[in-house]
Amino acid sequence: MNTLTSEIEIIKSKTSKINEVDFENLSFGKTFSDHMLECHYKNGKWEAPKVVPYHPITLDPSAKIFHYGQSVFEGMKAYKDANDDIFLFRPLDNCKRLNISSKRLAIPELPESYFMEGLKALLKVDSDWIPKKDGSSLYIRPFVFASGNGFHASPADEYTFLIACAPSGSYFSGKVKVLIEEKYSRSANGGVGFAKAGGNYAGQFYPTQLAIEKGYQQVIWTDDNTHEYIEEAGAMNIFIRINDTLITGPTSDRILDGITRKSIIELAKAEGIPVEVRKITVHEVVAAAKNGSLKEMFGAGTAAVISPISGFGYHGEDFDLPELENTYASSLKKRITDIQTNKCDDPFGWRYKVE
Amino acid sequence: MNTLTSEIEIIKSKTSKINEVDFENLSFGKTFSDHMLECHYKNGKWEAPKVVPYHPITLDPSAKIFHYGQSVFEGMKAYKDANDDIFLFRPLDNCKRLNISSKRLAIPELPESYFMEGLKALLKVDSDWIPKKDGSSLYIRPFVFASGNGFHASPADEYTFLIACAPSGSYFSGKVKVLIEEKYSRSANGGVGFAKAGGNYAGQFYPTQLAIEKGYQQVIWTDDNTHEYIEEAGAMNIFIRINDTLITGPTSDRILDGITRKSIIELAKAEGIPVEVRKITVHEVVAAAKNGSLKEMFGAGTAAVISPISGFGYHGEDFDLPELENTYASSLKKRITDIQTNKCDDPFGWRYKVE
Repeated sequence: MNTLTSEIEIIKSKTSKINEVDFENLSFGKTFSDHMLECHYKNGKWEAPKVVPYHPITLDPSAKIFHYGQSVFEGMKAYKDANDDIFLFRPLDNCKRLNISSKRLAIPELPESYFMEGLKALLKVDSDWIPKKDGSSLYIRPFVFASGNGFHASPADEYTFLIACAPSGSYFSGKVKVLIEEKYSRSANGGVGFAKAGGNYAGQFYPTQLAIEKGYQQVIWTDDNTHEYIEEAGAMNIFIRINDTLITGPTSDRILDGITRKSIIELAKAEGIPVEVRKITVHEVVAAAKNGSLKEMFGAGTAAVISPISGFGYHGEDFDLPELENTYASSLKKRITDIQTNKCDDPFGWRYKVE
Repeated sequence: MNTLTSEIEIIKSKTSKINEVDFENLSFGKTFSDHMLECHYKNGKWEAPKVVPYHPITLDPSAKIFHYGQSVFEGMKAYKDANDDIFLFRPLDNCKRLNISSKRLAIPELPESYFMEGLKALLKVDSDWIPKKDGSSLYIRPFVFASGNGFHASPADEYTFLIACAPSGSYFSGKVKVLIEEKYSRSANGGVGFAKAGGNYAGQFYPTQLAIEKGYQQVIWTDDNTHEYIEEAGAMNIFIRINDTLITGPTSDRILDGITRKSIIELAKAEGIPVEVRKITVHEVVAAAKNGSLKEMFGAGTAAVISPISGFGYHGEDFDLPELENTYASSLKKRITDIQTNKCDDPFGWRYKVE
């Protein structure tokens, strides 16, 4: 792997858009900071990353990203505490996962120092863009795409790695009602479901639209062979609480190894919550809903952190979840966001100070 | 659906690159003609397409094509006969399939007249780019991608439809040795395998690289659940000849409804070849190879038309196919390309004269 031999080059924007932004009313991922990290793969190697003004990308119409879906991404957040210190959450895990995704998509892996040093340099330049308001953060989007040209269905010879940042409010507002999918699928055994590959997301949009037309907000994905096993919740991992036990499916080549997912597992265990990482069937969840032992369901991911589910539809029938006073979802979300935002101690060593 | 209310607007390139091109030694999909068709979806509708100079595409870094793989494409070819008449092959089927793919990817469907009239206008402007040499053609790439912006994992609000053209020689040269895949998969039940979605191709690159490292050129895809059923050959449909019978798998939500595939089925039937469209197991193919009844295997698709297979690897063992004098592959390929290039009559009505 290459390592950086010198400081990251920084080319500053001549003007700033920051005064146009209403930090009190941020939506999710629609406003972008003044700079981005840019890095190119050419002639068999990654060139040194640079911090540059946020600017449009120009590509030939034959660039392989347009034709063959060769792209991977990550989602991260930066937070600022009362002292204006900047924090990330388990950033090296994002870097490693980006490379795991890249490998599966035949994209050259990126040197870790390019990712980590590049990201830190970018955050220092755009530190004023990190919101301090509760619930807001600087959403960070590292992504790699095939920028090489040609219509031959084979890996590109050039790639572009960018990190762009968007000061953002909450991803979801309120609880969501979900539909357990019985026809469409998200991923195949031996496929790319475990990777954060662009194509995994495009394939979810149409089934989600159909669910929305039926009055739901999200889809619960099941396995493509039997539709009997619960796999993911929309673009998130899923947790199910039956009585006092928190259950989530094991990761596999079909299920993303979510950083929020594994943090929740560790946090819950540390707080004495019984956690089971095992396959869970739709049948079990429906039976638990009917006998009253189903207490909570929630999605877990970087963007929403934890997204509680109010009820689900399955096979033409709707099931409501109880309205509990003290939920795992709210206590675990508070615990994670307190760690992320430096409001409590961090016995796990997850918080990463940018300096 | 919108229909065109007037002639397609044409903005001609001020210069031509055609004199830089060696039409005697064309590779596949690396040289592009002077113009392209461009069409934008904005504010809930497709705007009228235009023929414009081939030019780079400029996108915001947050454009959804970079993040969520929302793209579909088609492959077609234009031929010129001795009288300089221009022919396409079943073009309306490509247009219809593009919309079938788009629907599954939550991309707005395109009016048929935009596709057909736009394509014809483009071919007339770039008619000098259509090679006349045997085996060469103008490869045509219609594609649609998400050009709308934002990091939210949901369908874009803007799309771009382009048709670009590349004068091209053969896609493959010679027979290929293939590996029957036992671990990786191309598509899921209820997934997007039947669509020409970008993400389907990116997921194939890494397993194909592994096969190449083992001395094969392509992968034969099997079903993701059992790996017992033969599904596709690389990015093509697959045909298997056992004794005198030609067998191909049925289309499904996992297998592309190939235009070359269905043309081969019709042609073979018309020529008195016994054709079976049914599931075929790896076990059956291996047994046929062992007892000598396996006569031919070939891939079928627009780019390569028919790509004969010399042998296959499975479970650590290699199987060679016989070297026959008269193959279905060569006679069917000649018949299809003769129809495509206006060298024989066309009882099926597949040939489409551009005028």
